[in-house]
Amino acid sequence: MKAPVAVNGYGTIGKRVAEAIRQMPDLELKGIVKYTPDYSVLVAYRQGIPIYVPKGKEGVFEEVGVKPSGTVDELFGSVSLVVDASPGGKGAQNKRVYVERGLSALFEGGESPDVAEVSFSTLCNYRQALGKKYIRVVSCNTTALLRLICLLDRHIGVRKARAVIVRRASDPKEDKGIVNTVKLDPPSIPSHHAIDVKTVLPDLDIETVALIVPTTLMHVHVVHIQTKRSTSIDEVVETLSSTPRIVVLEGAKIGIDSTSKIVEFARDLGRKRYDIYENVVWRDMIKVNGDELTIVQAVHQEAIVIPENIDAIRAALRLAESAEETMRVTDKVLNVGLQR
Amino acid sequence: MKAPVAVNGYGTIGKRVAEAIRQMPDLELKGIVKYTPDYSVLVAYRQGIPIYVPKGKEGVFEEVGVKPSGTVDELFGSVSLVVDASPGGKGAQNKRVYVERGLSALFEGGESPDVAEVSFSTLCNYRQALGKKYIRVVSCNTTALLRLICLLDRHIGVRKARAVIVRRASDPKEDKGIVNTVKLDPPSIPSHHAIDVKTVLPDLDIETVALIVPTTLMHVHVVHIQTKRSTSIDEVVETLSSTPRIVVLEGAKIGIDSTSKIVEFARDLGRKRYDIYENVVWRDMIKVNGDELTIVQAVHQEAIVIPENIDAIRAALRLAESAEETMRVTDKVLNVGLQR
Repeated sequence: MKAPVAVNGYGTIGKRVAEAIRQMPDLELKGIVKYTPDYSVLVAYRQGIPIYVPKGKEGVFEEVGVKPSGTVDELFGSVSLVVDASPGGKGAQNKRVYVERGLSALFEGGESPDVAEVSFSTLCNYRQALGKKYIRVVSCNTTALLRLICLLDRHIGVRKARAVIVRRASDPKEDKGIVNTVKLDPPSIPSHHAIDVKTVLPDLDIETVALIVPTTLMHVHVVHIQTKRSTSIDEVVETLSSTPRIVVLEGAKIGIDSTSKIVEFARDLGRKRYDIYENVVWRDMIKVNGDELTIVQAVHQEAIVIPENIDAIRAALRLAESAEETMRVTDKVLNVGLQR
Repeated sequence: MKAPVAVNGYGTIGKRVAEAIRQMPDLELKGIVKYTPDYSVLVAYRQGIPIYVPKGKEGVFEEVGVKPSGTVDELFGSVSLVVDASPGGKGAQNKRVYVERGLSALFEGGESPDVAEVSFSTLCNYRQALGKKYIRVVSCNTTALLRLICLLDRHIGVRKARAVIVRRASDPKEDKGIVNTVKLDPPSIPSHHAIDVKTVLPDLDIETVALIVPTTLMHVHVVHIQTKRSTSIDEVVETLSSTPRIVVLEGAKIGIDSTSKIVEFARDLGRKRYDIYENVVWRDMIKVNGDELTIVQAVHQEAIVIPENIDAIRAALRLAESAEETMRVTDKVLNVGLQR
């Protein structure tokens, strides 16, 4: 029997999580919650995704050609877990409803860590999240940093990490964003990313500086890591390549030297919405000098947390007992790391 | 008597150096060399700057209303030094002429280091350049890194430096540049900046990673420095503030949290072309943890090398015997560090 799940909020993350859930052999998407009708709900409806709306709002949706499957109350009565992908801060407000109904809930990185029992990264602390009722999947930059750091820590040992995060200004669908400037985000050190990494790895010595630049495609990280022992480029590449969640690109050899070219590569591969679930690490930008390691990676902000959301559902509902077990399914179904 | 100087090439750097020379009490701008007439030569002409052109080209300039003062040969016969601000690589070709005529020459950072006897940074190696016939003023990013590193090294001691350089894509006057992407520049480590810093400080342990982003205003550097002993924010601020070439901005307090706001500040100050000769270091982005120092600075690529060009002229012609002596004049006249 598939585990019945709902998605509350159908924006950048919500729509991707909903589609991913539908593909999983052990999960059933009972429906999504929409509060106002827009183009995204039309697409969802045409795909056959059941739409649930607040009581009394049915008419507004029917006017645009979307026939709701029922009310939010009805949806929540039929699932065991809600993925709350509403705008940052809204999840904490919604939590009351989940608590009242005894539902498990996933929150996204835009929520404060205290909304959940555990902040989550598959490669770092899957077991810690097993059976937890409230789990927070950390945000895109934090997810990418954690994948990298936990993997390196397990195989080589990480003494400290210093990262410069060059953030995209807006997502592609947004109409607004900074133009022709580089903005401190925030004008202090550390940025919230280091703090967020510590919600999963409290003892890590990490500092992050974040800058926003006028792009929409991907974030770029320059990460300086001090390892616990000397390492080599080959060992680092082998370590990073041990998970499908990180792709080590032979960038220079195949001409991919920018975020726009990574995106074009994903488009050519036929990925839906060009979604890139993987950390993209440039092989030619890995530098090792004894215990000093420099890594440069690109992060697709819209897509990178989707595999972790699926894994977190399995952790909450105990559908998989280990990171390896959930990743085997998630990564194969979503074709993470070009597995199929 | 003022030292007679010519400027060969009248682009972004050439026009600024020419105007700066005209303001100096000990230098005389005998004229500039232009090969083809364009809007910049019209402005120069209206300012009363003598224009020299290749023999036979006088007519082309007269057609657009510019009456040349003479030929390039005549100009070079009347000066003791030429500032070669022609496009990168062209300076090395021009050098033959300077050698033949026994002229001293300054080259810019776009030239290969071996074009000159010394690569130059006022705060690092002024005395090394004294009386040298051929001096190369390093490029904008390198100039900014060297100011910072040499000052910190002198006062606190620098063990190693790791910098991430977020480069502007084009200068404001250019019509072309990258759009909506972050590009590796180059797709390998180190970028040429570390190599260029080493032309002045050969023994420094430095690594640089450079990314290009779609902006035109300023570069931004995130610099991680390991100092030779423990330091403090106050000591770092005091050290950086000891030269007018570096401005420590109380950014958060006065709302300057981006390169565009720094530029607006310079425009409001009435700076010509909003030129910013100083490294702009954000006070609130200085982080110190024992011997570990993080600094974030913005660099105006069009203007930052102008003071160093003036200093290098004085070094070549022995018009000032020390960095302090030349900087006293340069910085007062150009109002570097808002001295007047």
